[in-house]
Amino acid sequence: MSAHRAVQNYLQGVRVLDLTQFEAGPSCTEALAWLGAEVVKVENPNGGDPGRSSFRGKPGQDSWYFLLFNANKKSVAIDLKSPKGLALVTDMAKRADVFVENFAPGAVERLGLGYDAVRAINPGIIYAQVKGFGTGSRFERGLAFDMIAQASGGSMSITGEPDGPPIKPGATLGDTGTGMLLAISILGALYRRKATGEGERLELAMQDAMLQYIRVAFASMATTGQPATRNGSKLLSGKTAPSGVYPCKPGGRNDYVYVYVSRANPAHWRRLLEVIDRADLIGDPRYDTVQARAEREEEVDAIIANWTRQHDKHEAMRLISAVGVPAGAVLDTMELHNDPDFEKRGIMQVMHHPACGDFKMPTWPVRFGGGTLPVGPAPLLGEHNAAVLGEWLGLSADELAKLHQDGVI
Amino acid sequence: MSAHRAVQNYLQGVRVLDLTQFEAGPSCTEALAWLGAEVVKVENPNGGDPGRSSFRGKPGQDSWYFLLFNANKKSVAIDLKSPKGLALVTDMAKRADVFVENFAPGAVERLGLGYDAVRAINPGIIYAQVKGFGTGSRFERGLAFDMIAQASGGSMSITGEPDGPPIKPGATLGDTGTGMLLAISILGALYRRKATGEGERLELAMQDAMLQYIRVAFASMATTGQPATRNGSKLLSGKTAPSGVYPCKPGGRNDYVYVYVSRANPAHWRRLLEVIDRADLIGDPRYDTVQARAEREEEVDAIIANWTRQHDKHEAMRLISAVGVPAGAVLDTMELHNDPDFEKRGIMQVMHHPACGDFKMPTWPVRFGGGTLPVGPAPLLGEHNAAVLGEWLGLSADELAKLHQDGVI
Repeated sequence: MSAHRAVQNYLQGVRVLDLTQFEAGPSCTEALAWLGAEVVKVENPNGGDPGRSSFRGKPGQDSWYFLLFNANKKSVAIDLKSPKGLALVTDMAKRADVFVENFAPGAVERLGLGYDAVRAINPGIIYAQVKGFGTGSRFERGLAFDMIAQASGGSMSITGEPDGPPIKPGATLGDTGTGMLLAISILGALYRRKATGEGERLELAMQDAMLQYIRVAFASMATTGQPATRNGSKLLSGKTAPSGVYPCKPGGRNDYVYVYVSRANPAHWRRLLEVIDRADLIGDPRYDTVQARAEREEEVDAIIANWTRQHDKHEAMRLISAVGVPAGAVLDTMELHNDPDFEKRGIMQVMHHPACGDFKMPTWPVRFGGGTLPVGPAPLLGEHNAAVLGEWLGLSADELAKLHQDGVI
Repeated sequence: MSAHRAVQNYLQGVRVLDLTQFEAGPSCTEALAWLGAEVVKVENPNGGDPGRSSFRGKPGQDSWYFLLFNANKKSVAIDLKSPKGLALVTDMAKRADVFVENFAPGAVERLGLGYDAVRAINPGIIYAQVKGFGTGSRFERGLAFDMIAQASGGSMSITGEPDGPPIKPGATLGDTGTGMLLAISILGALYRRKATGEGERLELAMQDAMLQYIRVAFASMATTGQPATRNGSKLLSGKTAPSGVYPCKPGGRNDYVYVYVSRANPAHWRRLLEVIDRADLIGDPRYDTVQARAEREEEVDAIIANWTRQHDKHEAMRLISAVGVPAGAVLDTMELHNDPDFEKRGIMQVMHHPACGDFKMPTWPVRFGGGTLPVGPAPLLGEHNAAVLGEWLGLSADELAKLHQDGVI
């Protein structure tokens, strides 16, 4: 099996002008870059995307966070607050297919690069924006980060122990979850644009994006008439036993295996009993139906845990999974990082970065034609000034030198 | 502001043959349907997509869960295990642009609709599959549901209290999170196909998809050299205070407000102190820097909570957000459902369903040209047999009647 392949030309010729920072915007434009679009980050020459420095990396280098969200992009460093810099970016906007930004509310308009301004010079532009809260919402001007979106978008209310406070999912749904929905919308607009030449204005609020990922909780609420609850590692609604994380040896903080017996398939329970050496319970009416097990959930959990405690989580997953019962060890980031499966299959790859060195990281997880899309380095700040301004705007070496001298780039 | 608009023609003319069920697959094809693709679900005449009945709805009707994940699609009910049924679907596959399935491992090949078979009759097909674990992984044959993916894909290891067990995020990252990444990949392949006619094979494992959403945890691990931890409602890495959920009156299970003071902007702390009537602490060296506050996190949290306890979460969010400090009330599904903002802005819409009645639900959250994409009903089982088999395959009413009589459709 080839881990990855040479081509990544799905969006060949698509030019993305990328005025995003941190994660919601960059995760979106990075998805387009994985697919082969030319994504050009426009960054402040004084430090660039704050994601470069707000998180840690090797001393004096771009952060690991920045590398993760900016693979395969280019960077131009342009002072947007100088008239010449703004003129350059405006010229680039004329030649772009897609424009993406996630500044604080009102900022892109103050720069002179709002939708109306860009559309006036490029009617076919796909102009996409991420904000914390939606246009017309009463929090329209509110600042947001991932956790603010997860709090106000419902995700935290359904995460945690039943009797504990709301918990923030570690996954950055508010940021990357938002970015993925915007990427889908941009790609839809690009598809139409290829046929009709039409542009589009796209707006996505991080709070609104959360609803897409918690729809099962809305289904649960429609059933019960009550707000969806939180339920530890178990399902939100409908007691199913066994279901949840069960402790494994040696008892470390992530030594658990998730075991789930489907409500729809009675064979799961019987198969599980055989694996855990409790075939004696097969057919026992105390546990033989979904309803019976739900009523004796604590007993059922104890039966399972009695077995899982004698096994490590990898073995437990392997043995249970092998008989066709859904099981998953709770794996931490180090275990995932060290598992050779991911690198072999191209799901994790090594980014060779000219300044930061080699960095093994998760990459676009979809396989195309049996391989994954190859990772290229995240750009150094302004690395592509000459190449992009030359190609996009036809600037000569002398003109570039002058711009640099004037502090514009 | 118009809540939604009439057109949804971004993927006009794109035909999606949809052999998916439950959520990971259906959330993907639903995204394509929002954008205007013709998505035809192929379902077992005996009950159809198990998502119709495995969750609850009105008595005897399709579940709310099914309605949420199948808006704007069509349904044909065809017995894939009958030779005539298989021939019909094979003919449809010849005429489709996209084929999507998420059966258990090996099932689609046993049906005779594996990649090689479909590609042989339609070389331009974009053939997309979701499985629990990746091809070539040692769990390749393992069954998975959302929670198995979240356990084995790292998401649970970084969610929960520092001293508690792993928690399952309520958001269905393992399902919808997977579906969104596959949709992006399909759209990339469709874009190229429009230019070159080339098809593509796409495969996504739910476990692998999780890595895309927990990359900040990998950044954290790269920094510390340790597996990323879980930290309740606070950030995974780097102490920042205040940061987290703070209790509000009247003290209900979701009466909290998330408050976050940016590490990058010293003005946040000063603004927050003014809002909470503690201007006396402005400039106090005990709290005046990011590092000082991190060292006195408990004290800082007490100062904030002392104020939030006197306010309800909505008021707290409004007051703090208004001065430019990120704040988000922890909203539950009922509060989101009842907030008129979402319906006014078209983020929630009412699905008018011929059998289930009206159902207000979250819809595609991205605004296109100032409005959202309109919701159409999820299909009744086999509702479009005549229309789709007529249009796609040219079958006559007599031929359809014969197929029905023979129990094929």
